[in-house]
Amino acid sequence: MTGWTAPTRDTLFVLNDLLKVQDCTLPGYDMLDEETVQALIEGMGAFCTDVLAPLNPVADAQGCTRHADGSVTTPEGFKQAYKQLQEAGWNTLAMPEEYGGQGLPHVLGTVFEEYMNSACPGFMMYPGIVGGATSTILAAGSDHLKDTYVPPIISGEWLATMALTEGHAGTDLGLMRTKAEPAGNGTYSISGEKIFISGGEHDLTENIIHLVLARVPDAPAGSRGISLFLVPKVLPDGEKNALGCSAIEHKMGLNGSATCVMNFDGATGWLLGEENAGLAAMFIMMNAARLGVGVQGLAHAEHAYQRAATYATERKQGRAMGKRADPSAPADSLLVHPDVRRLLLDARAFAEGFRALVLWTAMQIDAAHHGDKDADALVSFLTPVIKAFGTDSGFQTAVDMQQVFGGHGYVKEWGMEQIVRDARIGMIYEGANGVQALDLAGRKLAKDGGQVAQKFAAMVAADLDGAPDWLVAPMQTALGDAAKAAQSMLEQAAKDPNALGAGSYAFMELIGHVAIGWMWVRMVKAVEGRDDEFSAAKRITARHFAERSLPATAMLRRKVEAGAENLMALPEDAFVRAI
Amino acid sequence: MTGWTAPTRDTLFVLNDLLKVQDCTLPGYDMLDEETVQALIEGMGAFCTDVLAPLNPVADAQGCTRHADGSVTTPEGFKQAYKQLQEAGWNTLAMPEEYGGQGLPHVLGTVFEEYMNSACPGFMMYPGIVGGATSTILAAGSDHLKDTYVPPIISGEWLATMALTEGHAGTDLGLMRTKAEPAGNGTYSISGEKIFISGGEHDLTENIIHLVLARVPDAPAGSRGISLFLVPKVLPDGEKNALGCSAIEHKMGLNGSATCVMNFDGATGWLLGEENAGLAAMFIMMNAARLGVGVQGLAHAEHAYQRAATYATERKQGRAMGKRADPSAPADSLLVHPDVRRLLLDARAFAEGFRALVLWTAMQIDAAHHGDKDADALVSFLTPVIKAFGTDSGFQTAVDMQQVFGGHGYVKEWGMEQIVRDARIGMIYEGANGVQALDLAGRKLAKDGGQVAQKFAAMVAADLDGAPDWLVAPMQTALGDAAKAAQSMLEQAAKDPNALGAGSYAFMELIGHVAIGWMWVRMVKAVEGRDDEFSAAKRITARHFAERSLPATAMLRRKVEAGAENLMALPEDAFVRAI
Repeated sequence: MTGWTAPTRDTLFVLNDLLKVQDCTLPGYDMLDEETVQALIEGMGAFCTDVLAPLNPVADAQGCTRHADGSVTTPEGFKQAYKQLQEAGWNTLAMPEEYGGQGLPHVLGTVFEEYMNSACPGFMMYPGIVGGATSTILAAGSDHLKDTYVPPIISGEWLATMALTEGHAGTDLGLMRTKAEPAGNGTYSISGEKIFISGGEHDLTENIIHLVLARVPDAPAGSRGISLFLVPKVLPDGEKNALGCSAIEHKMGLNGSATCVMNFDGATGWLLGEENAGLAAMFIMMNAARLGVGVQGLAHAEHAYQRAATYATERKQGRAMGKRADPSAPADSLLVHPDVRRLLLDARAFAEGFRALVLWTAMQIDAAHHGDKDADALVSFLTPVIKAFGTDSGFQTAVDMQQVFGGHGYVKEWGMEQIVRDARIGMIYEGANGVQALDLAGRKLAKDGGQVAQKFAAMVAADLDGAPDWLVAPMQTALGDAAKAAQSMLEQAAKDPNALGAGSYAFMELIGHVAIGWMWVRMVKAVEGRDDEFSAAKRITARHFAERSLPATAMLRRKVEAGAENLMALPEDAFVRAI
Repeated sequence: MTGWTAPTRDTLFVLNDLLKVQDCTLPGYDMLDEETVQALIEGMGAFCTDVLAPLNPVADAQGCTRHADGSVTTPEGFKQAYKQLQEAGWNTLAMPEEYGGQGLPHVLGTVFEEYMNSACPGFMMYPGIVGGATSTILAAGSDHLKDTYVPPIISGEWLATMALTEGHAGTDLGLMRTKAEPAGNGTYSISGEKIFISGGEHDLTENIIHLVLARVPDAPAGSRGISLFLVPKVLPDGEKNALGCSAIEHKMGLNGSATCVMNFDGATGWLLGEENAGLAAMFIMMNAARLGVGVQGLAHAEHAYQRAATYATERKQGRAMGKRADPSAPADSLLVHPDVRRLLLDARAFAEGFRALVLWTAMQIDAAHHGDKDADALVSFLTPVIKAFGTDSGFQTAVDMQQVFGGHGYVKEWGMEQIVRDARIGMIYEGANGVQALDLAGRKLAKDGGQVAQKFAAMVAADLDGAPDWLVAPMQTALGDAAKAAQSMLEQAAKDPNALGAGSYAFMELIGHVAIGWMWVRMVKAVEGRDDEFSAAKRITARHFAERSLPATAMLRRKVEAGAENLMALPEDAFVRAI
């Protein structure tokens, strides 16, 4: 029984044949000749397969340990692996050269994120924040803060956290109570408790740089009174700052990641950006994190698919209907069963389609970083879809692949149930998927009256030209459903403030179907005229998506059209029923 | 934060107002006057709420322990609770009076199953097998076996197991290797290894009666050569039989249940029924178990809904769109968010609709036991739907309700992630849900050319008379989709042996939607003209099912129509992709 191996061939297909990174004229892409890309992808793949993947079951079984002095030990092997990662520099590929990174395009960093998340998601949580944290410090920090903190974070000498959530507030950051008092010397004194802080304390680096949301005195109420601070564990003079981890959570999964309750007891912090403008600064980090979480959905789906495909191929049990696949053997492989194939092809249609979407989006981020406003708007539109649809589908895929194993899928030793437990958090953190859907419906669709959505739809429609009929027809239906759903939701919203919330989730799922279907259109066109096995499999998988996933769009449109009235009809006190 | 409380009011509504058990003329129902029913339901509810529910987190955290001598200790409190259960006799309600049971209808036993599964599913696994095991012994055993084994099993003095699965065979019982050699004295010597045996060893009772599938010498190959044996842990002379537990599984959940590897080393067994006719005898037990597992889906959904509804009501976070629900408070309850209500109403529409379906089916079982062949055919048709759709929806509901808790849902202390882990096994055991779907499409639909399916549809259609338009219209569409899907699958199957497997899963889901929708039709009619809050909530929840669940039927029909061709197109060796 093998586990996961980096899917380098499919990655290279997406980069070279679909996205044609060699033809891209953006800065940094000139380094991406086919040989370099192949060497980098295979290097990343080997590192994740050989160094990180073996840690995954250990991380789950051992978890992290908090000691009485507040220190936290990560699972066996994490320290050594982190050192190897730091030395190899894989995590700095897409970081700015000015601060010690390698200046390669973001699209390559995204490939590495996928591989790390498949190999050992608990480990990935520590370096996973680096991109978002550095972008935030670079965008909002003073030159002094940038020069002091960004190079050691990029080099991996130090790690970082996002410290946003408080126990009573959750998503509602306006309720936050953590205080920041000016100390008179340009610093602030930070006091409060934050929960769910990934990597808040650990033994991988000497210093940990916390990016903390807090309120300055007399700040406006709600989310307009929030400021962002840089609060290091170890101060520049080598003293320990007044902060610490008071507990770690016992979770459903992702046990390798230390999820900390952090206490700030008059800790010294530096303002990032302006006072009361913390929300905007935080969103730089948050948007990067959201795309990263979407990539986790892909990573879990790929990992789970690989294990299930191997098991279904090797497991001899049951018989084909009609003609026996192998009459001399006592049983056929599980692959003779159409319903097992359905599960596997569902998984593959999502994973391959979503990989294409995620890497396409990463290229748009590269374009946006170099000033392309259309690309920026598209990234912004697709970010909640990638986060929510990606993690929902990643989890569903993990559950489906677990099912292929029958009873063995429920037993720890086969590794499938860990993927399910690990994948579950993606639907919750960095903004629960319902919040993502509302972001899409409110900030992305309604705010500009549907203009970006229309641009997106026009781009998809244009690509249908030259695709085969079996894919064009359901995609046209899907585009029609999306347009009608958007129109219905906007019309309802003019009369009923709850309409966006009522239709948002189904609308997010609808756009997810359209976006992945679009990538299948492009992939089918990319392999047109090729008759190798790889290309044949792409066509079969695309057809599966057309036959088995796209029929959902009409249902999703109808859910959007159903509106808010009946949802809001039940009185609040009737949810907890008299029993 | 309260946990689960027995939903006695909804149960009483289903029994009294919907199913009108008082009007039923079957034997045993004459005892069910309204007062008796209420006293029994409330007694069951109190026992499960007060005695079993507190054990649930303990069972999860402690699990079971196997000692070096092969003995197994259940979690703290299980022994005492089992003794209380035995003394109260709740588990014998629907057992035959002749053997010490109380002779009440099966429908009441089903209510108790639901409550036990909500309160502590790990505990429920031990007594849960009793009904199926006694039915099997009563149907297939000699008078001597019946008299020796059934009374102590019914009284709870002994417990029983189903010992079917072997490691290499899984669902494919034809591959089974366990041997049964005639010993010359009417007994058999049983040798082999069985896995996944729930309650194979434990400390709740002195004796454990294993019902074991094995092959006699020269048995025909495959599933026609399987016989069923009764193999007690302790022999009638008080000697220990040659069998034991060699390991227990470490599972994703259901930790309170000891899942054993059982070794039979020349153990003494008695034949149940005829040699080589074990499969038929086993199916008596299996069909009871499958309905029981469907009830587990209901139980998890109800438990998860109750916790999430309470949390959403009490948690103040975020603001209503438009007019603020409570302008003086810093935040509104989660119930102001339409998307949170969507999750809760999805859960409730499933749980209440499925409770009605399960109890309706239990009444049909009572009728079938007294010779009603139509009832028997309907139970047989609906059994795979109740098992598969019930557990899929129960798991999905648990996941959705976990989502309502945000990050707290992922943390162990809130109890939600345990429900998700516990609920996952229902989709796998007693025949994975894909096997259930194939059973529906093959043995239940195709085998009689769709006759029972048409009877079922006609019964549903007849009940639409007098229901409101908003429910009749989508139900008529659903019935049309079901009829077209059945016809399409039967037509395809005439040409392609893989067509049933290719369409089976979506067809099962389609019938699940129709069956639950039908119960909502009946419930809405049952509360017609009533203007109390309970009745109003029923109408709102029914409308939610009509608006948000029934639109799936067209999609499911299209999946069935897609057929097998593309599913079977990918060569077997292309599933494990070149990487």
